[in-house]
Amino acid sequence: MYIGGGSIKRSGLYDKIRELFKDFEVSELPGIEPNPKLTSVEKGTAICKEKGIQVILAVGGGSTIDASKHIAASACYDGQPWDLVKDRSLVAGALPVAVVLTICATGSEMNSGAVISNEKTHEKLEINHPLLYPRLSFCDPTYLYTLPSKQTAAGAVDILSHVMEQYFQPNDEAYITDVLSEAVMKTVVKYARKAMDEPENYEARSNLMWASTIGLNHLLTVGKGGAWSVHPIEHVLSAYYDITHGVGLAILTPAWMEYVLSDKTAPRFARFAREVFGVGEADDRKAARLGIEKVRQFNRSLAMPSTLSEAGVLEEKFDEMAAEAVRTSGIASRAYVKLQVPDVKNILMNCK
Amino acid sequence: MYIGGGSIKRSGLYDKIRELFKDFEVSELPGIEPNPKLTSVEKGTAICKEKGIQVILAVGGGSTIDASKHIAASACYDGQPWDLVKDRSLVAGALPVAVVLTICATGSEMNSGAVISNEKTHEKLEINHPLLYPRLSFCDPTYLYTLPSKQTAAGAVDILSHVMEQYFQPNDEAYITDVLSEAVMKTVVKYARKAMDEPENYEARSNLMWASTIGLNHLLTVGKGGAWSVHPIEHVLSAYYDITHGVGLAILTPAWMEYVLSDKTAPRFARFAREVFGVGEADDRKAARLGIEKVRQFNRSLAMPSTLSEAGVLEEKFDEMAAEAVRTSGIASRAYVKLQVPDVKNILMNCK
Repeated sequence: MYIGGGSIKRSGLYDKIRELFKDFEVSELPGIEPNPKLTSVEKGTAICKEKGIQVILAVGGGSTIDASKHIAASACYDGQPWDLVKDRSLVAGALPVAVVLTICATGSEMNSGAVISNEKTHEKLEINHPLLYPRLSFCDPTYLYTLPSKQTAAGAVDILSHVMEQYFQPNDEAYITDVLSEAVMKTVVKYARKAMDEPENYEARSNLMWASTIGLNHLLTVGKGGAWSVHPIEHVLSAYYDITHGVGLAILTPAWMEYVLSDKTAPRFARFAREVFGVGEADDRKAARLGIEKVRQFNRSLAMPSTLSEAGVLEEKFDEMAAEAVRTSGIASRAYVKLQVPDVKNILMNCK
Repeated sequence: MYIGGGSIKRSGLYDKIRELFKDFEVSELPGIEPNPKLTSVEKGTAICKEKGIQVILAVGGGSTIDASKHIAASACYDGQPWDLVKDRSLVAGALPVAVVLTICATGSEMNSGAVISNEKTHEKLEINHPLLYPRLSFCDPTYLYTLPSKQTAAGAVDILSHVMEQYFQPNDEAYITDVLSEAVMKTVVKYARKAMDEPENYEARSNLMWASTIGLNHLLTVGKGGAWSVHPIEHVLSAYYDITHGVGLAILTPAWMEYVLSDKTAPRFARFAREVFGVGEADDRKAARLGIEKVRQFNRSLAMPSTLSEAGVLEEKFDEMAAEAVRTSGIASRAYVKLQVPDVKNILMNCK
């Protein structure tokens, strides 16, 4: 079965793939939406069961791949797909998933996670299981040439955020992981705007594409670990308002950094500022502040909005969303700086 | 079948493994030598065929793993093991190899290569085949606590050299690979001496161990490629004089850098000096020279010899060895700076 978004028909990739598989029986599930929805997963699962699908080919970005992974597991499960998100121990099998990557952002092409939005419950949650690794992924930077500027930007913010989530953690002994992370972050900062300005620049596209894959294929979590901070908050925004994931991250990240900046976090934030953005300031606290400003500048350079109101997210749901972010994540118990519901609310208020 | 060096009996690891496998039939091939020899491979192959061995457990460092890989392939081949080195297309199968790593240096625990020395022909050549990947490798830094200082040093030089061989290549567009490589090189420079001084320092051992694995698991060759320069020369030294691989690399590397330094190579050597050793010099040529001096200093800090005569390698074989290095490698046709026989001879002369 082929699963994809809409853009590949315009780019000609769709015709190419159909031609390659002309001797096979192929079912289609086009039109997977950003923040892929449970209803799409349910639709795909039904097709798999009905047609006896044997392999899923995900052609697209993180949304398409994530939906495909969830469908792959749901096709081998008798109950409701959402059960598997709530209790991953129910995953007992999965159809093989192959990937043709056309958006670089989530790293889903080389990891075992998938994030799915349940429209009814306003939950955007991750299912993660070793059986969900794609069996193979084709990552050809020329497939990114037709990617619109906005998606290139949102993807770059997502990559940078993945690395930051792994990098801002208490353990300082995994030096090699920290320097590898800085390498990937420098790459994103160097090429993001360039890929927007010159969509067919192979150097920019290939460096970003590979950064997205190794940004979240477990390499950068070796010796680190701990719960993430900004992603869980953003997932709630997306679940309530269906905003672009990268846009939510761009707004929240500097606000989170400012909120958790302290004597304890300043040295690492300062290191980030110096290594990733070349900040020369010797005082840690000052360097950390300059680093936060650099993140804001970077986001602005990608034409990202800087407030929640610009993105259409309203204050009236802040309490509910803050509670939900804490309830559905390890942010209060295992994050770099542990945050409770009022903290998350404050961060949202600072992004108004 | 268990294959290993000698040290694991002293460390207690041998007893632990025998206890774990007490319910299995186990054959042993202890005493694999550094620069593992064809005769050992032949011995191991005979045991595999005679006893119908199903799995090989390599307990040791690169020599043990490399011998195990070659044995694994030879056990599934009817002719002579050396045939497979001369013509890898003859590899049609391989027993599964598992690894318990006790020396970090070669990266063999996560790649598909093996370097074997033929004592009769003075050839030290690589066999490389996808079937030779270890199926799993246990990389526990505490197994390095008993590793002697000299082997720690030689291993660190080997890791650094692997990354340099991949980093000094003509393609400058793979920025992400370059910065990842710099990250790994910085790690080696930071921790090598520390691991010698404090053999039970987990931070130093774990960072070096992981650097050795990702130093040669293909991550750092993405977008680069091209033939290596220093390794092929060193392999000939080891094949003729059986010197420690890392010692040969330490002597040859700065001499090679000096020999190929030119207006064309200076910018990359300068970048290496700045990023890996923090050299502040703005002029490329001067920075490159400072970088070479830093490599020499690093080697001295690890108590490495700096001349071939100290290592027992004699001038009388220089002509023969130079010819052999060119004959058995891509150094004259595909290296960063292409070197002919007289060039290699000159480099050897500069190391006398």
